[in-house]
Parts: sequence; structure tokens; C-alpha cells
Amino acid sequence: MIDETHDPKRVSWVASANGHVDFPLQNLPLGVFSPPGNNVPDAKARGGMAIGDKIFDLKAALAAGLFSGEAETAAKAASGGSLNRLMALGSAPRRALRRQVFDLLASDGTNTAKARNLAGGILHDANVCAMQVPAQVASFTDFFAGIHHATNGGRRRNPNDPLGPNYKYVPVAYHSRASSLQVSGQPIRRPSGQRKLPEENAPTYGPCRKLDYELEVAIWLGPGNRQGEPIPIAEAAEHIVGLGFVNDWSARDIQQWESAPLGPFLGKSFGSTVSPWIVTMEALAPFRVAQPRRPAGDPRPLDYLWDEADQRRGAFDIALEALVLTEKMRAAGQPPHRMSRSGTLDLYWTIAQMVAHQTCNGCNIEPGDLFGTGTISGPTPEGWGSLSELSQDGQKSNTLPSGESRTFLEDGDEAIFRARASRAGYVSIGFGECRGRVAAA
Amino acid sequence: MIDETHDPKRVSWVASANGHVDFPLQNLPLGVFSPPGNNVPDAKARGGMAIGDKIFDLKAALAAGLFSGEAETAAKAASGGSLNRLMALGSAPRRALRRQVFDLLASDGTNTAKARNLAGGILHDANVCAMQVPAQVASFTDFFAGIHHATNGGRRRNPNDPLGPNYKYVPVAYHSRASSLQVSGQPIRRPSGQRKLPEENAPTYGPCRKLDYELEVAIWLGPGNRQGEPIPIAEAAEHIVGLGFVNDWSARDIQQWESAPLGPFLGKSFGSTVSPWIVTMEALAPFRVAQPRRPAGDPRPLDYLWDEADQRRGAFDIALEALVLTEKMRAAGQPPHRMSRSGTLDLYWTIAQMVAHQTCNGCNIEPGDLFGTGTISGPTPEGWGSLSELSQDGQKSNTLPSGESRTFLEDGDEAIFRARASRAGYVSIGFGECRGRVAAA
Repeated sequence: MIDETHDPKRVSWVASANGHVDFPLQNLPLGVFSPPGNNVPDAKARGGMAIGDKIFDLKAALAAGLFSGEAETAAKAASGGSLNRLMALGSAPRRALRRQVFDLLASDGTNTAKARNLAGGILHDANVCAMQVPAQVASFTDFFAGIHHATNGGRRRNPNDPLGPNYKYVPVAYHSRASSLQVSGQPIRRPSGQRKLPEENAPTYGPCRKLDYELEVAIWLGPGNRQGEPIPIAEAAEHIVGLGFVNDWSARDIQQWESAPLGPFLGKSFGSTVSPWIVTMEALAPFRVAQPRRPAGDPRPLDYLWDEADQRRGAFDIALEALVLTEKMRAAGQPPHRMSRSGTLDLYWTIAQMVAHQTCNGCNIEPGDLFGTGTISGPTPEGWGSLSELSQDGQKSNTLPSGESRTFLEDGDEAIFRARASRAGYVSIGFGECRGRVAAA
Repeated sequence: MIDETHDPKRVSWVASANGHVDFPLQNLPLGVFSPPGNNVPDAKARGGMAIGDKIFDLKAALAAGLFSGEAETAAKAASGGSLNRLMALGSAPRRALRRQVFDLLASDGTNTAKARNLAGGILHDANVCAMQVPAQVASFTDFFAGIHHATNGGRRRNPNDPLGPNYKYVPVAYHSRASSLQVSGQPIRRPSGQRKLPEENAPTYGPCRKLDYELEVAIWLGPGNRQGEPIPIAEAAEHIVGLGFVNDWSARDIQQWESAPLGPFLGKSFGSTVSPWIVTMEALAPFRVAQPRRPAGDPRPLDYLWDEADQRRGAFDIALEALVLTEKMRAAGQPPHRMSRSGTLDLYWTIAQMVAHQTCNGCNIEPGDLFGTGTISGPTPEGWGSLSELSQDGQKSNTLPSGESRTFLEDGDEAIFRARASRAGYVSIGFGECRGRVAAA
């Protein structure tokens, strides 16, 4: 999958793309947007690709006759208000679309002139477009594959065996809530719920007192499998569309009280924020690396989770950051403050292993389904991807450059995630930001 | 809501309805079916109502001009391949539809003659129609409100405090899997997965060795709320469409190994069977009763779960049965064997409490969402609604009339659920059966 669309010498006639931190010509992520001047966003939402600070309009480009063959099929499927139909097509049409858009937007493509002539109709300024959750998500599974996060959380339950007996065999996950997914930029309202602090005799209902973010990578899926027919790990790649962010906002006090014995529920379901752009597997191909070697003594994954090719190239080398911007910092014009740095190499399981596990019992994945990786924390405090870890569940205060201190999120605080995939000889790409600001209960 | 549609003296000109165990004139449950002679079931699926051993075709009746006003709006919304649009309308149009269909199908209705003349076009033999899951389920929440089941399960974890500290405060629930819902009559394939029995050193991947059914009541929901705006318990009724069954098939060995710390996942997601008919809140109105008095010492529900009207009339008196039919019994022409008898009065929480809890953090319910109550077991072994309870997790064998014995389900076994709502002075109604036969892995 490493081809001319990764050539670092190619540049775009869309000037802002060249050197863009997230969206150079070599990225071309997929999303759903409403063009400017539109009073009914849903009615006119359509698929697009980010290029620099512009959005390339797939519906308009299709109407202008810029696509042919499989790319045309893909552009048609991406012209509606969600990308589910595109995701149902599998990888070949998506790859063809990427190639033709690359050719249209490159300075030296075979169809560059055609596209440049139509620029006014097929390119929109991103900052005046409204982004949407890119697909209708039928099922949202949240994994727990960030081993340092799992260790940090487990230590509170069982200091001697924080991961428990199953962690290194089972890609642990739970069903999460799809209805309350929202897109980056929408406020997240502080939830109310039942909370009981250890020192209290009985629970009360009221606003969450331990509101947290969780830095996770989102995995968008399709076409998926028929019920009863597992996806073998060697075929998982065909069902993975691309990556983005999910902020798995967590109300720790609600979660801690409710979770026995069936797991997290209302502590998570009040809202989860996804970043609007899906960075495709094609764009990420140069950043694939070997699955990090398991520590000596760790069990070999069971056969249904084992694939030589996946071991050699199934992981990703993507650097991640979580930042916080408070109301006070915003007013003072200060930049967001980085709370942690971690990366996708801190995941214990590959995405192919997640797909194989999710379906190994015959459970069916549908186009547009979403996985979260689980919070991705690094091995040391600099890498801890949630405030629960950074504050040791509220015991330790974190000082910000504004002089403020935080255990958990206050109203007005904004959580911001950033990603960067880099490799010598290639153009770096990112996911675009995932942002969400806490609104009062 | 108790009106002429509950009058026990009214009968139908559809002869099989009168005295029908499940579907007399006074029930009229909603479902989605494909009429006979249809080679492409999905393309022609439409809403209908069960009446005796027939299905009343809402799309055909609409086309024949049999409806007016709000009932016409409801019939239009029910004419497609799922009931989501009808569920989005709320209770008034659904109630109007019920009244007009009652009038059409009663022997002495004002429009009886019109309907009888069209009988060939608007009634189908149920046994030649293909039923479907009645709605596209976006989110499926499974509660844990059967207190005897929760106690039986908890006893294995903690004999001294089987329910744990939160059970009597929190309507405990988890997100379950919507993609693998199937309708009564479809086979359920024995799932494979990671299992580790306590006596084994390491897990293996293979077919489930502890396959179980769970007797649950299904709750169909709509229209639902906007994200961030909880549904107050006093308004919950408007969002409850009706009831049916869900068999929450469970792979106990997979579940036991995977569930720490995030709860059940693949042990449940391989498939859940729903009964095809939604028995509406209107049909169930005569069978509403007071919420059973909590034992002395139990806490009063928190305010957001407390509503006087709900306490007085929020529960249902519906008798439930779980039966098993093995391959050998089937071959010998033996009837299914009843494994347990319980009822909806064995639920610790009302449905309105479930709706209020689900949304109390701002989580949004969408039209067509599904709740399961959790397994409904009675207080004694005669009432235990799963084989895990009846066999004490496989320790105790249950003898069947065929001479066979069972701890968990064998291939070819069929689990069958039946319900009956009865009250002096009213015509009894049922849900129709929920059946699923185990196919080999």
C-alpha cells in the first residue's frame, strides 16, 4: 500500500496543504461536512477530504465528472450524509478514490488543470464548514488495550495483580453507547448521576464531581461480517477503514459506584467525542511497524489472535498528546497545556487482534461501527492519558501554567487531543484535533 | 388507558382470535412481517398486528383507505420495514391506530363491514409470514432488575453480600450488542471463544461448553430524548412502546473468563433473540399493578427514581415460563418441558425507573431502542430463569421427562419462553412465543 500517494516530493496546488501539520497531500482523510451558507446542516451534509485548510467536496467533484471507475463508485457512496455506504464497499474503491483525489490535488497530476479550473466549486474553507460524526455508528465497542492505563486503574483494585489473570490473553472490551457520540467542538455537558464517595453513607444524585477525559484512538470499521462468521485475523485489514480520536469522557464517581458487577454504564454514556476526520489505512501505511515485543514471560496470543504479518507490521507508530485549556488560560490568550504524551505503541493488542476478537464468537460488525482502543497511557506519569491517573483518583493536584490546579475537569475546561505520525523519508500526517469543552451541569 | 378496547364482551370476526391464548382482539400487538409469496423478505416487509392466527396488514389497510386522522399517520409510519418511525411518534397516534384497528376487527365495530369485505387483502395467515426484529435497534441496554437472579449470581462471587452495596440504589445495567439481535425462530449458533475453566492453567479457544438461555422481558422504546435532557420519571411512560421477550443467550464459560473488569462482552454478543410482537402499553393497561413493597430496611429510591404514580401502578403482573425442547423430545413428539415459572413482579425496578436511570446523565434514547430487564427468576428454584441458576453453574444436573439430563444447553435444544397477563374481568393476553434452537458451533 506504499505507493506514489506517499511520495514526499509531491506537493499540492492547494498551498495550505504543503507543510500542513495534519493534512498534507499525503493524508486526504475522509469526513462528513456541511458546506457554508447552509441553514439545514443535515440536509446538505456530504463526504469530503481534508486538504490543508480546505475541504475537498466529494459530492461536487462527482457531479463535475472528475471521477471514473471504482473511484466514482466510492465518491457516490460518500456523497450522502454519512460514510456508512462507503465503508460497506471495502478497501479497493476507497483506495481508488484516494489515488484519483491525489492526482487531482497534486501540482503535477494528470488531471490537475481540470480540478484547478473547478476549485471554486469543489473546495471549501474548512473553518466555515460544520463537521459531523462521519458515520451512523450502530455499535461502539471500547477496548482496554492501553496496558499502562489498565495497570494504573487495576492498581487501585488489586495492587498485587493490577491486570488480573485475563488481560494478557483477552483483548478486554465492553459495549459502549453509540447514541451519544458527538463530534469535536460540541460542548460536553457535565452529567448528573448517582455518586457515593467512600466516606459517604449513601449515594446522592447530582452533578459529577470527578469528570475526566480519556485519550483514545478511534477505529472506524467496515464492511464487516455476517453473524456467525468470524473474521480471521489474517483478513481483518479489509475491515478497518481508518483511525481518528475518541474522547471517552468519564464520570469517575458515577462509574465507581455503578460498575459492580456489570461494568461501566452511565459513567460513560453521557457523551463521547470523536474527531471528524478518518485517517485511512492507506494514508497510515508508511507508519506501520512491528507489534512491540511482549515482555519475557507474557503468554503467546492464542492462535485466533496470532498472525505473522500482523506481528511484523500490525502496529502503528503514532505520537499522541492530551492537552487542557481552562477558561482562565483562554481569557489570557495562553496556549493549551500538554498533560501527557503517549503513543499507539503503548497498546498491548493490535487493531487486527481487536477485530478478530470482536468477531470470534460470531458477533457481526457493521459498516460504520466504531472501536475505541481504551485510554492510551505511556509507562511513566508524563504519559498518563487521563486525569484519574494523573491525579491518582483525585488525591494529587496538577498545577497548570496559569497557576490553577486540577484534579478533575472544571466547567469551561477544554480537552484537546493531537496526533502525529512521522517517519524519515515520509511526510508527517496527523488526525486533526479532537476538542470538547465542559459545559455546566 | 382502560377503555372499550379492553371490554371482555367484545369479540372479533376473525374467529381464531376469540379465546386465542396470546392474540385476542384485546391485544393487537405490533410487529414487522413479510407476506407470503415473497422471495425478497426485506423489500416487502411492513408493519402488522397479530389477531388470532392471522396478521392484520397495516400497509394494505392504509392503501385501502381504512384509517383516518392520527391512526392514518401511525399506519403510514408503520408501513415500512421497521417500526422505528411509528415509535418516534409517541403514544397518541399509536393509541388511535389501536382503536381504529379494534373497531375494524370487532364483530360489532362501526367499520366492521368495510374490513370484512377486504379481508382477503388485509389479513394473512401468520404461519406463512416471515417475522422480523420489529425495529432497527440502535442501542440495546440490558438491566439486572431480576433481584432473585442477581442474588443467585452474586452468591457465587460473595456469599455474604450477593447483591453488593449498590444494587438497591442503582438499576444496574450494561450496554449490550444490538448488531446480533435476531428474531424468534432463527437458530442460534453455539459460539466459540476463549474459555478457561478454574481447573485449567490457561485459556483455549473453542466452542462454548456452558451455553445458557436467560428469560428476560424486552422493552421497546420511543420517541426518546435529546442528549443532555434526562427524561423525568413522571414522563417515562410516554417513551415506552411495549413489551416482548428477549432471550439473552449467554456463554457462561466465555463470560466468566472475560468479564473482569469491564463486564460481559463476547459471552453475550453472539446473538440475542427477541419475540416478534410488541405488546403495547395500551394492551397491557389492565395488568398494571403497584410496585411490590420493598422489604423492610431497603432504602427508598432516590428522588429521580421515585414517582407516586409509578409506585402505585408502575409494575406489571405477567406470568412467565421458560421451557426446553430437546432433539430427542422433538423426535418423540413430546411437548416442551417447563424449566421455570416466574413473573414480572420479581423485578426490583419498574420500567419507568429504568428509563429515568438510563437518561439521568443526559444519555439519549432513540426510537426503536431496546431494554432487557435482566433475567427474571422467582425466589425459589422453580422460578430460576437460567440454566446457570438451575444447574448451579453446572454442578447439578436437571432431569427432563425424556430421561435426558441437562446442566447447560446441548446442540439441538430449543429454549421457549411464554407469557400470560391475566386479571379477573379481563381477557388474558400473551406475548407470543420466543423460540431459538441451538445449532452446532
